[in-house]
Amino acid sequence: MTKSYFEDIAPVTYKGAGSTDPLSFRHYDKDRVVLGKRMEDHLRFAACYWHTFCWNGLDPFGGGTFLRPWFEGGSPMELAHQKADAAFDFFSRLSVPYYCFHDRDVAPEGSTPRESRENFLRMVDVLGAQQQRTGMKLLWGTANLFSHRRFMSGAASNPDPAIFGLAALQVRDAMNATLALGGENYVLWGGREGYETLLNTNLGQELDQLGRFLTMAVEHKHKIGFKGTILIEPKPREPSKHQYDFDTATVYGFLVRYGLEKEVKVNIEANHATLSGHSFEHEIATAGALGLLGSLDMNRGDPQLGWDTDQFPNNVPETAIALYHVLQAGGLGSGGLNFDSKVRRQSIDPADLFHGHIGGMDVCARALLVAEQMILDGQLQQALDARYAGWKTPAGQDILEGRVTLDQLADLALATNVDVAPASGRQEYLENMVNRFTGA
Amino acid sequence: MTKSYFEDIAPVTYKGAGSTDPLSFRHYDKDRVVLGKRMEDHLRFAACYWHTFCWNGLDPFGGGTFLRPWFEGGSPMELAHQKADAAFDFFSRLSVPYYCFHDRDVAPEGSTPRESRENFLRMVDVLGAQQQRTGMKLLWGTANLFSHRRFMSGAASNPDPAIFGLAALQVRDAMNATLALGGENYVLWGGREGYETLLNTNLGQELDQLGRFLTMAVEHKHKIGFKGTILIEPKPREPSKHQYDFDTATVYGFLVRYGLEKEVKVNIEANHATLSGHSFEHEIATAGALGLLGSLDMNRGDPQLGWDTDQFPNNVPETAIALYHVLQAGGLGSGGLNFDSKVRRQSIDPADLFHGHIGGMDVCARALLVAEQMILDGQLQQALDARYAGWKTPAGQDILEGRVTLDQLADLALATNVDVAPASGRQEYLENMVNRFTGA
Amino acid sequence: MTKSYFEDIAPVTYKGAGSTDPLSFRHYDKDRVVLGKRMEDHLRFAACYWHTFCWNGLDPFGGGTFLRPWFEGGSPMELAHQKADAAFDFFSRLSVPYYCFHDRDVAPEGSTPRESRENFLRMVDVLGAQQQRTGMKLLWGTANLFSHRRFMSGAASNPDPAIFGLAALQVRDAMNATLALGGENYVLWGGREGYETLLNTNLGQELDQLGRFLTMAVEHKHKIGFKGTILIEPKPREPSKHQYDFDTATVYGFLVRYGLEKEVKVNIEANHATLSGHSFEHEIATAGALGLLGSLDMNRGDPQLGWDTDQFPNNVPETAIALYHVLQAGGLGSGGLNFDSKVRRQSIDPADLFHGHIGGMDVCARALLVAEQMILDGQLQQALDARYAGWKTPAGQDILEGRVTLDQLADLALATNVDVAPASGRQEYLENMVNRFTGA
Amino acid sequence: MTKSYFEDIAPVTYKGAGSTDPLSFRHYDKDRVVLGKRMEDHLRFAACYWHTFCWNGLDPFGGGTFLRPWFEGGSPMELAHQKADAAFDFFSRLSVPYYCFHDRDVAPEGSTPRESRENFLRMVDVLGAQQQRTGMKLLWGTANLFSHRRFMSGAASNPDPAIFGLAALQVRDAMNATLALGGENYVLWGGREGYETLLNTNLGQELDQLGRFLTMAVEHKHKIGFKGTILIEPKPREPSKHQYDFDTATVYGFLVRYGLEKEVKVNIEANHATLSGHSFEHEIATAGALGLLGSLDMNRGDPQLGWDTDQFPNNVPETAIALYHVLQAGGLGSGGLNFDSKVRRQSIDPADLFHGHIGGMDVCARALLVAEQMILDGQLQQALDARYAGWKTPAGQDILEGRVTLDQLADLALATNVDVAPASGRQEYLENMVNRFTGA
Repeated sequence: MTKSYFEDIAPVTYKGAGSTDPLSFRHYDKDRVVLGKRMEDHLRFAACYWHTFCWNGLDPFGGGTFLRPWFEGGSPMELAHQKADAAFDFFSRLSVPYYCFHDRDVAPEGSTPRESRENFLRMVDVLGAQQQRTGMKLLWGTANLFSHRRFMSGAASNPDPAIFGLAALQVRDAMNATLALGGENYVLWGGREGYETLLNTNLGQELDQLGRFLTMAVEHKHKIGFKGTILIEPKPREPSKHQYDFDTATVYGFLVRYGLEKEVKVNIEANHATLSGHSFEHEIATAGALGLLGSLDMNRGDPQLGWDTDQFPNNVPETAIALYHVLQAGGLGSGGLNFDSKVRRQSIDPADLFHGHIGGMDVCARALLVAEQMILDGQLQQALDARYAGWKTPAGQDILEGRVTLDQLADLALATNVDVAPASGRQEYLENMVNRFTGA
Repeated sequence: MTKSYFEDIAPVTYKGAGSTDPLSFRHYDKDRVVLGKRMEDHLRFAACYWHTFCWNGLDPFGGGTFLRPWFEGGSPMELAHQKADAAFDFFSRLSVPYYCFHDRDVAPEGSTPRESRENFLRMVDVLGAQQQRTGMKLLWGTANLFSHRRFMSGAASNPDPAIFGLAALQVRDAMNATLALGGENYVLWGGREGYETLLNTNLGQELDQLGRFLTMAVEHKHKIGFKGTILIEPKPREPSKHQYDFDTATVYGFLVRYGLEKEVKVNIEANHATLSGHSFEHEIATAGALGLLGSLDMNRGDPQLGWDTDQFPNNVPETAIALYHVLQAGGLGSGGLNFDSKVRRQSIDPADLFHGHIGGMDVCARALLVAEQMILDGQLQQALDARYAGWKTPAGQDILEGRVTLDQLADLALATNVDVAPASGRQEYLENMVNRFTGA
Repeated sequence: MTKSYFEDIAPVTYKGAGSTDPLSFRHYDKDRVVLGKRMEDHLRFAACYWHTFCWNGLDPFGGGTFLRPWFEGGSPMELAHQKADAAFDFFSRLSVPYYCFHDRDVAPEGSTPRESRENFLRMVDVLGAQQQRTGMKLLWGTANLFSHRRFMSGAASNPDPAIFGLAALQVRDAMNATLALGGENYVLWGGREGYETLLNTNLGQELDQLGRFLTMAVEHKHKIGFKGTILIEPKPREPSKHQYDFDTATVYGFLVRYGLEKEVKVNIEANHATLSGHSFEHEIATAGALGLLGSLDMNRGDPQLGWDTDQFPNNVPETAIALYHVLQAGGLGSGGLNFDSKVRRQSIDPADLFHGHIGGMDVCARALLVAEQMILDGQLQQALDARYAGWKTPAGQDILEGRVTLDQLADLALATNVDVAPASGRQEYLENMVNRFTGA
Repeated sequence: MTKSYFEDIAPVTYKGAGSTDPLSFRHYDKDRVVLGKRMEDHLRFAACYWHTFCWNGLDPFGGGTFLRPWFEGGSPMELAHQKADAAFDFFSRLSVPYYCFHDRDVAPEGSTPRESRENFLRMVDVLGAQQQRTGMKLLWGTANLFSHRRFMSGAASNPDPAIFGLAALQVRDAMNATLALGGENYVLWGGREGYETLLNTNLGQELDQLGRFLTMAVEHKHKIGFKGTILIEPKPREPSKHQYDFDTATVYGFLVRYGLEKEVKVNIEANHATLSGHSFEHEIATAGALGLLGSLDMNRGDPQLGWDTDQFPNNVPETAIALYHVLQAGGLGSGGLNFDSKVRRQSIDPADLFHGHIGGMDVCARALLVAEQMILDGQLQQALDARYAGWKTPAGQDILEGRVTLDQLADLALATNVDVAPASGRQEYLENMVNRFTGA
């Protein structure tokens, strides 16, 4: 590739809120200090390899629409090199500090397991060199255990243990590569770890297989000395009818069942949250409460559509609430904000890839500033503390700490013999307060 | 009540599949032996007090439509007696062996906690006498912790510990009453144990409150010697925006978190299952796999409506799959099949209450016979066993029992160096097989 | 009522975007000129009688939570007077220029049709006096044809023509009252004009009944000289399983079928739009394209809930897009922005009613300013014009105006014999542009 | 193809309800007379070319799983011939009397419009010869205006009139081919005739384009003497966010707007119905009431999934209600029952294609027999007639025929001055009656 696919796009820089240059940041000012930390260090943005460099625009009703130079015109490995050049060129121009990849994004499937592995190892070296050259870092690596037909009935949850073995091979190598590339997390998304019909499914058996697989992955992590976090990415369905990692609460129960709740956290995606019947902030707050908050995929869904649309975030008030809950939970640790996002199928120009990411980054940056104001102002937290103040009293603490029985409490209520007047939940007041910070 | 509200309805009897009498059973032949057990003992049908005797037809857009004699024209306690007469008259004519109630269904709220309790205790005696007279049994009792305004922000999860105390009073007395009445289970449905907005909610604190409350209830059960099962009834939302007992998998995680997974099971409702994005059989199979299957509420939803419609089951193929999974999980133990079902708001005649229950019971009875055939035939199970046969091999067992590492499996796959061909999931074949038993 | 329920709340005034007074407007500056018209004249805000003054907080799982002084302690007509005092006191303190009501909101149902009518006519006089005293105006009146049990199977679509007749009585009197009170529109919402099951429904017959009823209402309007607009309010379902006025496109077909498309417009509610599977802006744009845009109910739903939550709008970017489409369609004419909104059931304080409305009004005001910027900037419109420019060419116009046949076009394409390259839809670019105006 | 892909499957025959041969029909006895007509002539089954012969098992998260011999190993035209051989071999063995196709299913896209057309015309000759050889008939033809990237922003609703022209070419040739092959209908499904975002969409303009295109197609039909029915296939969304042919009621309004309601009917798909928030029977009954009922696609969705799963029907009670409404509406005329159905992605064996179709055909056949019983019994219709009897009275007729005004009706209700008691809707009674015929 002698000519850059993106050569018409200058590196994107912060030009201030008033900028009308569509290829500038209006809010993402990476060195701005927010609550004592640089914006870049809060947000830890990542761009993804797959939707941006591998997807060709195909959907279930139509073929590719994107004509990327690295899609055809060479051997698979030549194209993989070109794709890597383009990807790191894009990452650099965008000024995003991190990227993420699946093994099969960066290197082609070979005709045998060994060939696939060799392709991958060669491309891991290329990625390493690209990281060196550009300063890009790896937020997380992962293995694609859902696209190939061998995984059509699951990878770890496959009825055939030989396919479980092939999945083990990919995860071993992908985790080793993540370590080699300095990756900060390792993700498992179980797109086919679920079922299409219970008629052909032994649900309990498959859960045990999944538990075993994850245990082996955790043990491997320790064996190789990988210090990053292992993350499960919940999703309720699609492609499968039901996926075992339905949502954060389900993942929590699964982890505890297999003794892994101290070892594994969740990578929450906004679109997956809403598909599971939850708000994004619900999933974040739940993960926070359960000690599982790991990392975020910021792509949103469309409220009218029942499938993963993976759109870039574009609503500041919604994003601000999400980031407020991240900050309340103590931040993301080794995680970051990844755009597992797709430009629309009709957005076929190279510039569209920039518009998508710039818009998403600016929305997150603006949302972070809103969340900062919510925290500095402190009234939301004060209202919450006041609401639950009774639980800080000796009587409240006695209950919480198990010093009273049901009978004692019941008898006390009878002895007091008065009803208790409820207090307003003040939802509208609190929503208006939030809008004060969003600029609304 | 000198005249029975239902006096025009003769006791309902089994008249065979060809019966055209709409007030007879065509399939529910209680003494018919199915897989070695009487149909009645498999199904353990219960009718509920609330929708059938307390609800007046009101919905959010309109007032009552049912003109039951026990709704007005006397003091609250006089009406409670009339309601009990009508309820047991109905249960008897219907030949349903069990019933269920909330404390506030059977006795009116008083002006103080003590008066409420006295009302309740007096009516518990009345229920006991009615049981004695009619032979009816209590499947489960429960406390209504969601209708009164004091519980608008939750009962156990209320921000005010004094309201937690009033909830404790009700649960203590309702559980004691359940024991006194020979009830076989005790249910907790957390309709307001959730939130409307995270802005005023401390999610972690509320989960801890819920865990404490349930622990106290379990301890009380043991203290009073109640041998029945404590059941949580999952529901994802409604009335709350989010309810903590979202679905069976969530309840599992919650129980494990508070050390209660050996003490508490789930009461799964078909309508709640579908509202949570699952099929009814999914929830049953999940509870089976996790060891939590307790009891069932058979009321279905409407696939086009996003709220609880609590309709009587009317689809045999769907119900047969649900009961097949119950049988596969070893049955319901102390649980049963309760109709937490409402006749439609326009079904204002006394006979409509019979049509709803008769139809529901016949659908379940017919579905049980279908499930029996599925089991006796055995091909479904054989297909499943064949599909997972690899996991019974030494190689499969080594994996499941933790005798190989990720590295070993990966190296083995590399050494073998062949891809593994997937096998057909045969979903259509299996669906057709099921239809062979449903009569389709 | 000697003491005002709202006496602790001073009249709400505009205090500027920086105001931290929760009982002030931060954006609604009614005299500010936007695109040549006062903000108040653009927005034409209305508050509604029903949710704010009649609803007691009841939901399907619990009783009332609001303890309004006008709910009990007097005869129905005395309470109706107290309610009117409270309502107009609230409207005045809120500075909202319009209100809306159902007949049964303002006056109690009597024991006979005549008594109901007399109650209503007396209260219409009271409303008139209140309007005189306060300067309040009536945006629209309507008749409640869905709450009473007689309407359980529909009003105009009822299987019994005698119930159709009772509906006619209410609509005649409500429309006459609307005229008498200077109302600017008359609304029909068909909450029970639909069905629960097709098994008991003659769908074609019911549509004809509805068509007849609407025709009679239109003829009555002309007879009495009412110059306001008759509006149908679409909703897809709830309370009915299916409502005939499903959405704007459905209403259009219905109106054309009965020859009423020049006589009737739609009152679009945000929450109804999303329940029907559409965005709010979709319904507005559709009504604009079909010439049916009449008025708006601004209450939003909750994206995770499948029923009408009727929440106050709180998201500026979403609201701005909606108002942009209103402006693009030429505005609302005699319509306005009504809050058919409910404070949450837990928001039990008088102040909560203010917080809900103030927040909603500020969100709309801010959204109007955003929409103004989108229009003044002009780039969105320019991008749209450029995209469709081909249709302005002679070739495009020949097609649109019917001057070429399919054969001719096909032959031309063959003769040209080249494929046509598609152009980017630029969705992300356009979304980012919108965010420039929302402050994101 | 010297060896048949399906040679292991003997022609499928009717073997009676007790058959345990999974490759036999248990209910579809084509010569059995139902309500005076052969079962085959009622059902007019069709199999489709696309899902069964073109789809390779790909979904948005994974590649193909089906290894059909005609997918690779020859030139595109050679493969098209092989596919035709396989398709007609399958149709014949299945004994389905009709098939359906898109232009691009049967012949490959060429490098120019002319080449594409030549490919298509050559394959139309092949199809003709296959029909001759096998006796198969064409239920409907259609053009694929949604898969190629040129149509990514719509075909008739494309912003570029040149793409409208290319769509005209395909429709002209596909309609001509349908005529040549004796096809009985011509279908238009507007998968991309909608929008992804209103920000880049001129909704009114696009509706006018669609209206023009359909008008041209209708005029072409008459010009060439095609006597079949033109059908629009409604779908609310997917692939587009919003599709203009949302549902039957929307299509009705669209047709009336462009004067085409006498010329065009609808092809209703079960899965599209449920995606639009309607039941399948609702769409059928609506089309019946509006005079638009044309043909049916029998593929159902999954109630837990928000996208088109296109599964074979497998629930007799649900299908029976749908066919009851078809019979009540007078049948399908030139339409039929098409399986626009996909075997699951994991159903990779040739036999799975048979299982899917056999199951679907048997479900429909059994459902037809149920619907026959519902009609012969007559009680459902009698209950309906009784419910609406009031509208047959002179007073009812006066209203329906416009002989009374709102004032007159209102005054009559006042003069009568009595409330009207509502009658039970008897939904449970009617549902039970239906179950009597389904065998439940």
